[in-house]
Amino acid sequence: MHILITGGCGFLGARLARTLLAQGSLALAGAPAQPLARVVLADRVAPPADLQADARVQSIQGDLGEQLAGGALPLAEVQAVFHLAAAVSGECEADFDLGMRSNLDATRQLLEGCRRAGHAPVFVFSSSVAVFGDSPEQRLPAVIEDTSLPTPQNSYGIQKFIGEQLVADYTRKGFVQGRNVRLMTVSVRPGRPNGAASSFLSGMLREPLAGERARCPVAPETAVALSSPGNTVRGILRAATASSAEWGARTAVNLPALTTTVGEMAQALERVAGKEATALIDWEPDAQVAKIITGWPSRFAPKRALALGLAADESFEAILRDYVRENPQAVRLAVKG
Amino acid sequence: MHILITGGCGFLGARLARTLLAQGSLALAGAPAQPLARVVLADRVAPPADLQADARVQSIQGDLGEQLAGGALPLAEVQAVFHLAAAVSGECEADFDLGMRSNLDATRQLLEGCRRAGHAPVFVFSSSVAVFGDSPEQRLPAVIEDTSLPTPQNSYGIQKFIGEQLVADYTRKGFVQGRNVRLMTVSVRPGRPNGAASSFLSGMLREPLAGERARCPVAPETAVALSSPGNTVRGILRAATASSAEWGARTAVNLPALTTTVGEMAQALERVAGKEATALIDWEPDAQVAKIITGWPSRFAPKRALALGLAADESFEAILRDYVRENPQAVRLAVKG
Repeated sequence: MHILITGGCGFLGARLARTLLAQGSLALAGAPAQPLARVVLADRVAPPADLQADARVQSIQGDLGEQLAGGALPLAEVQAVFHLAAAVSGECEADFDLGMRSNLDATRQLLEGCRRAGHAPVFVFSSSVAVFGDSPEQRLPAVIEDTSLPTPQNSYGIQKFIGEQLVADYTRKGFVQGRNVRLMTVSVRPGRPNGAASSFLSGMLREPLAGERARCPVAPETAVALSSPGNTVRGILRAATASSAEWGARTAVNLPALTTTVGEMAQALERVAGKEATALIDWEPDAQVAKIITGWPSRFAPKRALALGLAADESFEAILRDYVRENPQAVRLAVKG
Repeated sequence: MHILITGGCGFLGARLARTLLAQGSLALAGAPAQPLARVVLADRVAPPADLQADARVQSIQGDLGEQLAGGALPLAEVQAVFHLAAAVSGECEADFDLGMRSNLDATRQLLEGCRRAGHAPVFVFSSSVAVFGDSPEQRLPAVIEDTSLPTPQNSYGIQKFIGEQLVADYTRKGFVQGRNVRLMTVSVRPGRPNGAASSFLSGMLREPLAGERARCPVAPETAVALSSPGNTVRGILRAATASSAEWGARTAVNLPALTTTVGEMAQALERVAGKEATALIDWEPDAQVAKIITGWPSRFAPKRALALGLAADESFEAILRDYVRENPQAVRLAVKG
C-alpha cells in the first residue's frame, strides 16, 4: 500500500508517518490490513532524519500547488491521501491570497488530481475547530455537536470549511472516499512557539518544563478544548480505517476534546513538575488574545467520534506526562510521580 | 446609482430589474434612497424587449467568467451587485466541471473584481434552499432554522453553500458588503418547463391554465415550500436595503416560504379555474422525482427574514391569482372569483 501525506514533514504529519511506519500496515476504509510499501511525504521542508532514514519513505519537497500543477505527486499509485498541508490562521489573516491559494486552491487541485487518477482513494481532510467561531451577531451554542452550524470568524476557518464541502461533493460523486475530520487545538506541541494565538496553550507547559519563563495571556478560568498529539493522530488514522458505513454522513466529524481550563493546566503542571515549574508562568492578560481564545468553543458532544471508538484524553495531567515521556530532551525540571 | 445584475435577463433577474426601474431609486444598506442611473444586465442572452427599451438599462452579453476575466463589467462604477447567474442543479449534476466553473469560479471572480474595485459594493448573493438536503446518514430537522446545518445532496447545493462562505469572508474582510439570501422554490414560474425536478411545481398550474395537460409526479400529500416570483424579488431587494445591523450575521438568511402540499395546490387551481383545470392534471407518480422532492425541506422558521419585515405568501390561491393577473396572455381557461 502507498500512502501520501501532504504537510508530511510538519509536526502532525511526521507523527502520523511514524505511527503508520511503526504499525507497518493499514486497514483502509474497513478493508483487511495491507502492508505499507511506501509513505510519500509532500512538504516544503525536508523530513526529520528518522523518517529520511526509513527506506519506505519518499520525500517530495516543494510547494503543494506547484507539485500538483506539475504532476509531481504519484496520485495514481496511492490508496490513501492524508491532506494535512495548510497555511495557518495567522498567515491567512495577514495574507488573504496566500490562504486562498494554499488552503482552498491546493485542496481543490489535490481532489482534482485524485479524480483524474480515477481509483477513488481514501482522502482524509484535516479540517479544524477553527470552523467554529463566536460573534456578537451569532453566538456559538454552549455545546458543539457534529451538526452545529460552523460560523468561521477568520479566513483559515472559512477555507477549511469550504474544503470540507469540496471533499463531501467529490465523495458523493465517487471521485474520492472522503473523510472530513476537525482537529482540536493540539497541546502539548513540542518545539518552539509558532505565533498562533493558541501557541501559549503549549508554551505555558513546554517552556517551564524546559526551565524557561512562559507567558499566559488569559485568565486561569478560561475554558479550552484540547487534544494531545497522540490522540489527534489516533483520530486522523481512525478516519482512514472507518468503513463508509461506520463513517456515516459526508459532513465533518469533530474529534474528541478534553475540556479543561488554563488554571487546571497550570495545576497539572504543578503536580508533574512542582511549584518550580508554575513559578515560571507569567500571568499577563492580553485582551486581544483573550478575545480570540474565548471565541473558540470549549465544550463538544462528539457523538460520531465516540461511536467510532475515539475518546478525549483522560486528563491534562495524562497529556503532560505523555509529553514528558516522549520529549525527555526538552525537560530540564525534575518530574514527580 | 449604478447596479449590476448577473443573470439579469433570466426570469428572476429581469423581474428584479423591472422592479428596480419602476421604483426608480434604491435605499442601499440603510442609506437614503438614490435615483437609479443605470442597471447593467450581464447575461448570456439578450434582455427582453421592455428592458432593452429602457434608456437606463445597459446589457452586456456573454459568459460571466469570460466577462470577468476580460474586465468587461463596470465593477468600479456599481454600488450594488445582485449575483443571480448560475448553472442550474440539473446541469451541475450532469456536468460537474460546468457547475464548478459557473457557480464557484465565477462567484469568486466576481468577488475578486469587487475587491479590486476597492469600494466594497453591496453584494447580494442568491443562494438556494438546495443547500439543504435529506439523506439516510443525516436527516433534516423537521423545521429548518437560519442556524440549521446545510447538508447539500447535489453539486449545485455545495457550490451555492461555498459561495455563501466566500461572500461571508469577503464581507468580513471589508471587500464587499455581502448579503447571502437563500431563495425558495419559485412557483408559479411563467414560460415553459425547464427540466428541473421542481419544474412540475409550476407546470401543474401553468399548463392547465393554458388549457394544456400537465403531469404531477408526486402524491397529493407531498409537502413543499414555495415562494411567488414577486415575493422572491421582494426578499432579494430587502437584502440590499437592510443595513449591516439589521442584516446581522454573515451567514445566509432563509427567505420565507409558504408550506403547502401538492394536493392543496391543485385545490387552489380548482377554486381559481374550476374542475376543467384540475382535470388536465395527470397524477402519474415518478419514484425518482418523488425522492428528490421529498428530500427538500418543507417547513422553515425564517426568523431573520421575518425580523426584516419579510413574510411568506399568504396562500397558494393568492400566488395563483397573482400569476393569472400578471400573465393574462398565458391563461386560456375562464377564471373564477
